[in-house]
Amino acid sequence: MHSLWLPVLCVFSRVLLAFSPTFLVPLAWAWFLDRDHHVQVWALGFAATALSGWLLWMATKRHRRELMPRDGFLLVNLVWVVLPLYAAVPLHYAVPGLTVSQAYFEAMSALTATGATAISGLDALPVSINVWRCFLQLIGGLGIMLLVVAVLPLLGLGGMQLYRAETPGPMKDTKFTPRIAETARGLWGVYVLFSVACMLAYRWAGMGWADAFMHMCTTMGLGGLSPYDASLGHYDSARIEWVATAFMTMAGISFLRYFVVLKHRSLRPITGDREIRTYLVVLAVAIAVVTLMLLAHGVYADFPTALRNAAFHVVSLATTTGYSTTDYAAWPVFVPVLLIFLGCFASCAGSTGGGIKMVRMVLLVKQARRELVRIIHPRVVNPVTLAGAVVPAPVMNAVFGFMLIYGAATVGLTMLLLMTGLDIVSAFTAVIATVNNIGPGLGVVGPASNYGVLSDAQLWVLSAAMMMGRLELLTVLVLFTGHFWRK
Amino acid sequence: MHSLWLPVLCVFSRVLLAFSPTFLVPLAWAWFLDRDHHVQVWALGFAATALSGWLLWMATKRHRRELMPRDGFLLVNLVWVVLPLYAAVPLHYAVPGLTVSQAYFEAMSALTATGATAISGLDALPVSINVWRCFLQLIGGLGIMLLVVAVLPLLGLGGMQLYRAETPGPMKDTKFTPRIAETARGLWGVYVLFSVACMLAYRWAGMGWADAFMHMCTTMGLGGLSPYDASLGHYDSARIEWVATAFMTMAGISFLRYFVVLKHRSLRPITGDREIRTYLVVLAVAIAVVTLMLLAHGVYADFPTALRNAAFHVVSLATTTGYSTTDYAAWPVFVPVLLIFLGCFASCAGSTGGGIKMVRMVLLVKQARRELVRIIHPRVVNPVTLAGAVVPAPVMNAVFGFMLIYGAATVGLTMLLLMTGLDIVSAFTAVIATVNNIGPGLGVVGPASNYGVLSDAQLWVLSAAMMMGRLELLTVLVLFTGHFWRK
Ligand SMILES: [K+]
Ligand SMILES: [K+]
Repeated sequence: MHSLWLPVLCVFSRVLLAFSPTFLVPLAWAWFLDRDHHVQVWALGFAATALSGWLLWMATKRHRRELMPRDGFLLVNLVWVVLPLYAAVPLHYAVPGLTVSQAYFEAMSALTATGATAISGLDALPVSINVWRCFLQLIGGLGIMLLVVAVLPLLGLGGMQLYRAETPGPMKDTKFTPRIAETARGLWGVYVLFSVACMLAYRWAGMGWADAFMHMCTTMGLGGLSPYDASLGHYDSARIEWVATAFMTMAGISFLRYFVVLKHRSLRPITGDREIRTYLVVLAVAIAVVTLMLLAHGVYADFPTALRNAAFHVVSLATTTGYSTTDYAAWPVFVPVLLIFLGCFASCAGSTGGGIKMVRMVLLVKQARRELVRIIHPRVVNPVTLAGAVVPAPVMNAVFGFMLIYGAATVGLTMLLLMTGLDIVSAFTAVIATVNNIGPGLGVVGPASNYGVLSDAQLWVLSAAMMMGRLELLTVLVLFTGHFWRK
Repeated sequence: MHSLWLPVLCVFSRVLLAFSPTFLVPLAWAWFLDRDHHVQVWALGFAATALSGWLLWMATKRHRRELMPRDGFLLVNLVWVVLPLYAAVPLHYAVPGLTVSQAYFEAMSALTATGATAISGLDALPVSINVWRCFLQLIGGLGIMLLVVAVLPLLGLGGMQLYRAETPGPMKDTKFTPRIAETARGLWGVYVLFSVACMLAYRWAGMGWADAFMHMCTTMGLGGLSPYDASLGHYDSARIEWVATAFMTMAGISFLRYFVVLKHRSLRPITGDREIRTYLVVLAVAIAVVTLMLLAHGVYADFPTALRNAAFHVVSLATTTGYSTTDYAAWPVFVPVLLIFLGCFASCAGSTGGGIKMVRMVLLVKQARRELVRIIHPRVVNPVTLAGAVVPAPVMNAVFGFMLIYGAATVGLTMLLLMTGLDIVSAFTAVIATVNNIGPGLGVVGPASNYGVLSDAQLWVLSAAMMMGRLELLTVLVLFTGHFWRK
């Protein structure tokens, strides 16, 4: 047991140390710009995080060794359960009336780039608190990017793993740390580049620098938190909405692709990819359908307004960002359900979007079509292909396995919420919105409301849902199998 | 084209001829017992059906030949689209104010053993109309039984096909007619035996002969229609409810099993079967949970009443019968959702229950568990087994294919209903209740209401849903592929 936990805690202590400077950003804001009374909260948060990281490091450093796949599972779970705890403490003390459950939910929501909020009256909060919420999403985005592009594939899991030709499974012989560090450098470089562009674009579109910074943080990681209760509706600016739409669309694709594009000076890795083309086509079709619905039902009278609202909300929900500019839950009921449905699968593997991912959906649709052909021609071998190569049976089985557990988790978590007395629509969409890291649901957790109305028990269930969804379910559930703990 | 349609129409003409005497049952009732003015309606229905069958037979008999698998698909679709049309005509003329859409919906509901009704004021209708609705479910049950036990496996489809060891696919070289006729004899014999027992039990429990006959018709085929608006709640009799509970539980298992049990004078085919054991365990656990919920929430104060209500409604919904004795939608929201959820999969393959079937669920759960093991031990071969034998990969793929199309159909049909403006809960549960041939949903189509409130467009969507669900989706969807129509 010791040999399993201590090396993992040793690495985790360094994650804590690396995370601690995050507190300096709201601290700087509070000190230099806001002059609000929260300076101590951020300073104490920094000190507590750094100190406990250092103590843990001292206690475990002699157990330091190269991580194995099994350590990877433990570490990833530990990071996404414990970091939100550290992030929640200052929220609990700084936001008046925020309970422990709400603070943990809010921190989890930020770090998993879900963007569901339990706080109302955001506009009146000291800016440093909103900076903290939003900056956590940028940090969360960096972590998630590394998780989905580097860590999960090493563990044999996640959407990106499907692009590996061999049998899915942890890569036993790979050295974790150098490989992850190498990926991080290239990936984060591109991410920073896009982030700067996004911030400048928001500034150009009319935001102040602070707002541009905060919204950049929550756009690039597809997080969706906002310093305003009305989300981007606060500005009522077509220009800002189109900027957001453009950057969300870009962020719905893996930054690894942009890295390869820049490296090879060729657009092929994007234009030639089946997943990305399907992603763009799905967005385009959905925008067209929603625009028509909005015009047909007279929600908007003119085409440009209908298109702008359709494009913004389709992209926001489909990429699992979760921004809104109006209460789209009040639109003809088909539309909000379509938006949430898109959020379950539309974003690309390797992006910070949540849910099933488009590549799995492409494979599932191909498999379903294949099954219909099999009925007529049972002897014809007609394997599912991706990027010109046959997808091996174990990879397809991994996709089915994911889908089964995804379905079971959705049903199970919904049942839990129903047991607490929540109504059907709110319970079901809250689960969908958190497991897929979208943010807003429908009913009492709709875009015009927030998660603050839920009970502690409901918030803990949904915090678990966000964390499980972000780690693509299996990473978490594997800890509950006997096989994992056996020597 | 001619060579495809004409032999199928030839067989279909004989199905029509065989179906025509069905009208004689309500006719007899109207003539001898009721003396109501509907005698002509039933007589004309009989004449029209028999005549058109005879004309079709004369027109096509020289194209008579042994059916091939492809003919089988056409025939099965034809039967479940056209027979409801013949069955609907007398309903449209006999029930005051019943529109064509409602009549077709009602007939489809009866013949697919769904049991959703679009008629209110059932208690005041002439008995012959209720006899017709209920007797249609007995006939539907006979047809469904043959479909799932004999026809679908020949076409390489359906839950029973999973018990075949070889690759799934149509059995090209099998003679259809003799094989189906042989199965029908054994199967229907057992069915009649159970039906007589069921009718006598209802009579013993306190029903009149007419009611006992009608409820037997809708219990044995897991249909769930009733001659009363209040369904079995009309009697408020514990004895009747326990009789219904017992016979529904029995009918949730394939009658083929009972046939084998009687033939071999051994209970092994039932007690040794994984699917049936899981079915019984799931029912027992659900009854326990619901009983506790009802007591905990004070819906019923005493244990026997809580148990009786829990057992009756769990079995009724899980077996996709759809009887109710009270508005269970008003119970704590967890319970009605659990009941509908059970209806999606709990009944056994080869029974007349709808949905996914327990055998598929058993395989899916095994596959999900296997996927979790694979993450830790990627090289371990750990195939899914059923009844001690390894389930071949193509069979597992067929199960996944079914689930994908089941999921897509559920989402797609729900979206269609949302487009018509129906609310989320009613739309989603109406689709679940019809695709799985359960009957009552929640919301406006809940147990205290009925489908009569829906618009024509909504009724046609749901009629299609009942038909598709009954034919296990693929049987219908295959007709929409180019491969099917190519020579
Ligand atoms: K989000
Ligand atoms: K039914």
